[in-house]
Amino acid sequence: MIIVMASRKKEDVDHVVAKVEELGYKAHLIVGVERTVIAAVGDERGKFRLQALESLPHVEKVVPILKSFKLAGREVKQEDTIVKVGSARIGGKTFSVIAGPCSVESREQITEIARTVKEAGAKILRGGAFKPRTSPYSFQGLEEEGLMLLEEAREKTGLPFVTEVLTPEQVPLVEKHADMLQVGARNMQNFGLLKAVGRAKKPVFLKRGMMSTLNELLMSAEYVLSEGNPNVVLCERGIRTFETETRNTLDISAVPVLKNLTHLPVIVDPSHATGHWALVGPMAKAAVVAGADGVMIEVHNNPAEAFSDGPQSLKPERFQQLMKEIVPLVKLAGKTI
Amino acid sequence: MIIVMASRKKEDVDHVVAKVEELGYKAHLIVGVERTVIAAVGDERGKFRLQALESLPHVEKVVPILKSFKLAGREVKQEDTIVKVGSARIGGKTFSVIAGPCSVESREQITEIARTVKEAGAKILRGGAFKPRTSPYSFQGLEEEGLMLLEEAREKTGLPFVTEVLTPEQVPLVEKHADMLQVGARNMQNFGLLKAVGRAKKPVFLKRGMMSTLNELLMSAEYVLSEGNPNVVLCERGIRTFETETRNTLDISAVPVLKNLTHLPVIVDPSHATGHWALVGPMAKAAVVAGADGVMIEVHNNPAEAFSDGPQSLKPERFQQLMKEIVPLVKLAGKTI
Amino acid sequence: MIIVMASRKKEDVDHVVAKVEELGYKAHLIVGVERTVIAAVGDERGKFRLQALESLPHVEKVVPILKSFKLAGREVKQEDTIVKVGSARIGGKTFSVIAGPCSVESREQITEIARTVKEAGAKILRGGAFKPRTSPYSFQGLEEEGLMLLEEAREKTGLPFVTEVLTPEQVPLVEKHADMLQVGARNMQNFGLLKAVGRAKKPVFLKRGMMSTLNELLMSAEYVLSEGNPNVVLCERGIRTFETETRNTLDISAVPVLKNLTHLPVIVDPSHATGHWALVGPMAKAAVVAGADGVMIEVHNNPAEAFSDGPQSLKPERFQQLMKEIVPLVKLAGKTI
Amino acid sequence: MIIVMASRKKEDVDHVVAKVEELGYKAHLIVGVERTVIAAVGDERGKFRLQALESLPHVEKVVPILKSFKLAGREVKQEDTIVKVGSARIGGKTFSVIAGPCSVESREQITEIARTVKEAGAKILRGGAFKPRTSPYSFQGLEEEGLMLLEEAREKTGLPFVTEVLTPEQVPLVEKHADMLQVGARNMQNFGLLKAVGRAKKPVFLKRGMMSTLNELLMSAEYVLSEGNPNVVLCERGIRTFETETRNTLDISAVPVLKNLTHLPVIVDPSHATGHWALVGPMAKAAVVAGADGVMIEVHNNPAEAFSDGPQSLKPERFQQLMKEIVPLVKLAGKTI
Repeated sequence: MIIVMASRKKEDVDHVVAKVEELGYKAHLIVGVERTVIAAVGDERGKFRLQALESLPHVEKVVPILKSFKLAGREVKQEDTIVKVGSARIGGKTFSVIAGPCSVESREQITEIARTVKEAGAKILRGGAFKPRTSPYSFQGLEEEGLMLLEEAREKTGLPFVTEVLTPEQVPLVEKHADMLQVGARNMQNFGLLKAVGRAKKPVFLKRGMMSTLNELLMSAEYVLSEGNPNVVLCERGIRTFETETRNTLDISAVPVLKNLTHLPVIVDPSHATGHWALVGPMAKAAVVAGADGVMIEVHNNPAEAFSDGPQSLKPERFQQLMKEIVPLVKLAGKTI
Repeated sequence: MIIVMASRKKEDVDHVVAKVEELGYKAHLIVGVERTVIAAVGDERGKFRLQALESLPHVEKVVPILKSFKLAGREVKQEDTIVKVGSARIGGKTFSVIAGPCSVESREQITEIARTVKEAGAKILRGGAFKPRTSPYSFQGLEEEGLMLLEEAREKTGLPFVTEVLTPEQVPLVEKHADMLQVGARNMQNFGLLKAVGRAKKPVFLKRGMMSTLNELLMSAEYVLSEGNPNVVLCERGIRTFETETRNTLDISAVPVLKNLTHLPVIVDPSHATGHWALVGPMAKAAVVAGADGVMIEVHNNPAEAFSDGPQSLKPERFQQLMKEIVPLVKLAGKTI
Repeated sequence: MIIVMASRKKEDVDHVVAKVEELGYKAHLIVGVERTVIAAVGDERGKFRLQALESLPHVEKVVPILKSFKLAGREVKQEDTIVKVGSARIGGKTFSVIAGPCSVESREQITEIARTVKEAGAKILRGGAFKPRTSPYSFQGLEEEGLMLLEEAREKTGLPFVTEVLTPEQVPLVEKHADMLQVGARNMQNFGLLKAVGRAKKPVFLKRGMMSTLNELLMSAEYVLSEGNPNVVLCERGIRTFETETRNTLDISAVPVLKNLTHLPVIVDPSHATGHWALVGPMAKAAVVAGADGVMIEVHNNPAEAFSDGPQSLKPERFQQLMKEIVPLVKLAGKTI
Repeated sequence: MIIVMASRKKEDVDHVVAKVEELGYKAHLIVGVERTVIAAVGDERGKFRLQALESLPHVEKVVPILKSFKLAGREVKQEDTIVKVGSARIGGKTFSVIAGPCSVESREQITEIARTVKEAGAKILRGGAFKPRTSPYSFQGLEEEGLMLLEEAREKTGLPFVTEVLTPEQVPLVEKHADMLQVGARNMQNFGLLKAVGRAKKPVFLKRGMMSTLNELLMSAEYVLSEGNPNVVLCERGIRTFETETRNTLDISAVPVLKNLTHLPVIVDPSHATGHWALVGPMAKAAVVAGADGVMIEVHNNPAEAFSDGPQSLKPERFQQLMKEIVPLVKLAGKTI
């Protein structure tokens, strides 16, 4: 922690040095040409207390030096984490394709789509049973019935599935049925939910909030890890910017940044990021070559009549085409689908 | 709903017109100089289905015309909603000052601060018992004990209090103790929590997410209202932007925009918005003259040793000074503290 | 400058220390619990060279400590700069109202508006002759004729005027006619233009770019000051965010932040910030109490037929009303109009 | 243009209809369930006047239907524009690699780097002679001498070069020496400069402003095209967001969006977008598969001693490695380097 002093008076500097030492840190004084700086050296516990020194009038700012996450960091664990999702694997030398509709709408719909995406090469099925919707008047999902239909689809196709969980109370129910629990973008800092999935036995698919920095994403992963669940998959799904041609702005550079900072697998969701089917293919391919461990893609057999996210869903034939285009890129990246 | 066609071919236009009518809308065709536009007239139910028409290749875009909230809107209810919080009122001709520490830390701390802010003119106490923290290693609040200490402070000072609730399960407990339930910025789109506080009997203090639009804030209020709880207070607390001199950017224009769109009271929180005590006073005053129904201000008796948010907390004497400066502005705004 | 090392190996640290000393800085080594940090102490010249050390693989990051502006800073000049604009003054104990149409459209229009705003209490007239427009097909201004009409309006009313200059070549012409030269938001980092107005004899009205940090705004002021022109007025006019209810987001906290960092006067333009006339009044009042040195307001005698920015222009009667509401606030702020 | 009425009173609607017809448009009335909407059909001239109707109190909003650019649009010209830069081509089936240092620093530096990038497969050299710098105290470029050195490098290697022009006055000089004129991100809406390069005989390399929408980028291209210069190359170089791990956020989805909207070539600059050399490779590869027509990459023989942008520059051997990785991706994309 580096404390930049606003004042250079001896008494002010001494006061801050004394505070720093009171908090159990060693204080190093650096007298610069125009500023005096105090480096506080010591254990990170109580860091927020050091930060509070910023409230002193003769302190200009307090600059943290260390990353705030630990368990999620590469420094603690060099090798890539490989997460087991039913019969599938995410991470390492595998490139994982997760596909399916935004919402489970009916037995026919989910089964048909599951068959389609499996044939095309997807290894994990997605489908929402509990839907987080901006409007209380929008379709909220089939709920428990949706989970049953996803299980049926798994039985028929062998595909494990990931589905979203919205509240801590839902965790036991969803955990019973699903192969992986999704924490959605709007819940990335729902700390009660993070703790609950951290105590679950199934892996967690954690989507970056559209307003969240990568550091915050890793801190949210840290919540899950620190509760004892080591199986966390991160997902970049676009951030909110001023641009309106796309629903969000896919931050593809998040992939190499995260792969450098953390051992956890990183998936890209080009469907939610762009909001438009015609952009899904190019962005999925960009994800492969940028080093992602997989993609999550919305596929619907009849997008124009989907209950949700129709505009961003691929038709089956477009998904098949995309899979063909992705295969050689995955090979070039040294991975296998 | 306005559907802008990418194609001008008769068969494409006819196809979309048929789809629109299939969904129960009346279609008006407008053939412009360069574009053909279809206006879909009818009941808003099923709107998401109209939006899904955007997935058709010959549709350029679908533009909604109506606001998506109803109960929160001025059109449904012209007069200002006045929310009763224990002995206090928010809305109408009242300017409400809510003050207190970020976190409840001890009996002495919360009681002393409660006394201070009451003397200076605050009508509602704030204080966090359950704290949403970016890091799992940060202080997470005194939890139930914190609620007890807030109750004690209420007994001693007569000030009703607002405190944050983090999960649906906590709602019954917090509702039992607190006079108003706060839904924090990070939970603004935690729809499970919104539904739970919507079924509570206590008023709800709903903070704008730091990357949420005003429309989304009103949609979240709509969740609470549509569950039967009419007592919602909105709070602007800064949005996330590229600027780094302040913790967030206080969107002060949100105040008149919201006052125009909704009948719900609007409070401004300059402490979280700016992240620095020296900016709290000017922004609180700006809130008054911009038409806010009140301010929420962090006050701490010893900011440099606060467990959280020290840098943005006012010392008691600075808070008293601010209250003196605010009074004449409130009067000019035609309100009373 | 603080250099945070990624490596803790002696040879890596020694290498960076050697580089730092090669560049003429003194290196202080701080060996922390988890990181090694090198503080580079010395003259700021060559700072970009220190920053380039970030390209070394064993360096994690380079953190600057000093503000990058000098002449614009309070540290160099404690007392407020007061800028003389014809017969008017901006800064110190004066609250300046600058008003007029977006564009000069005709002799009648500019003269009538000048009379109106003068009567209501404005001290400086605004009006665009050279217009920066997003589209090449939009009205580009009356150009030199517009300057003549502004001069006529000045003769008739005694109001000095500010008008925008778009290119270095236009500076001599605009300088000949105008009392203050405006550099628009889109040109805030047009460094050729900044240097040209820095060599002019008239004061400069520098608008914050909608994509610019306050630090960058002050660096652009530094360009003007370092060319020898000490008369710079800063203007906050809204920044670009994700919110769409307003044209931009007025960053009102920029006012106290800037007043703390710089001695230069700070004006707020609520018309461009909000894009809607109904929001101009509340935001102008917020500016007064937040500590601004003035406001710039668009007034048009017939907004529905304005050549540009009609939606955000005040009608004369609304402007008069606003001036009445502002006067007592200015008095409370300890200033005079 | 769609006008959404706030009022449903006959007189208010009639008033707007009359205004619309006065402006030469045909008005179509659509009476919805909750809103009345007026569609204004006609020639786009005078569009800003229609927009000004938003200032009428009984109008809620005015929604434009048409794209505001014309010459830059695919509707006017279906086939891809191919831009000739000296001996090189940008657009169509060519994938163009533009490489070189941020700034020209010396004869040895630019010549050596030119040789290196040519050998590795680059077809165009980049190098700044006039540098736009945030600080007036930073290195401002070698100016005319830099142009001479670039010419020498061209003579020795045969590589045509692109270099930035900062002001309209510099256009004739830079045009005399360079093969393509760069308009930098900070000047994307410097309309005087856009007009000047629009009258030049050399192609224009137009960088997206870091807080500019794609629509605004195309409008800036429209300025150049409408002055008579048909040779415009667009460049995505990252936009400003809240994320701080990267210098800017590379908006890779801009590539397919632009390729759909315009016939102009689209280049990606991963060096400025990310600000860090380790991210340049993955983002360059993402650009290829997302459909870009090329990349612009900063290469420096000694990044740790570069005069500018050291941290984001590739060393020669890393650039060679990247070129090897790019070749098979370019082939898969159906293009040739």
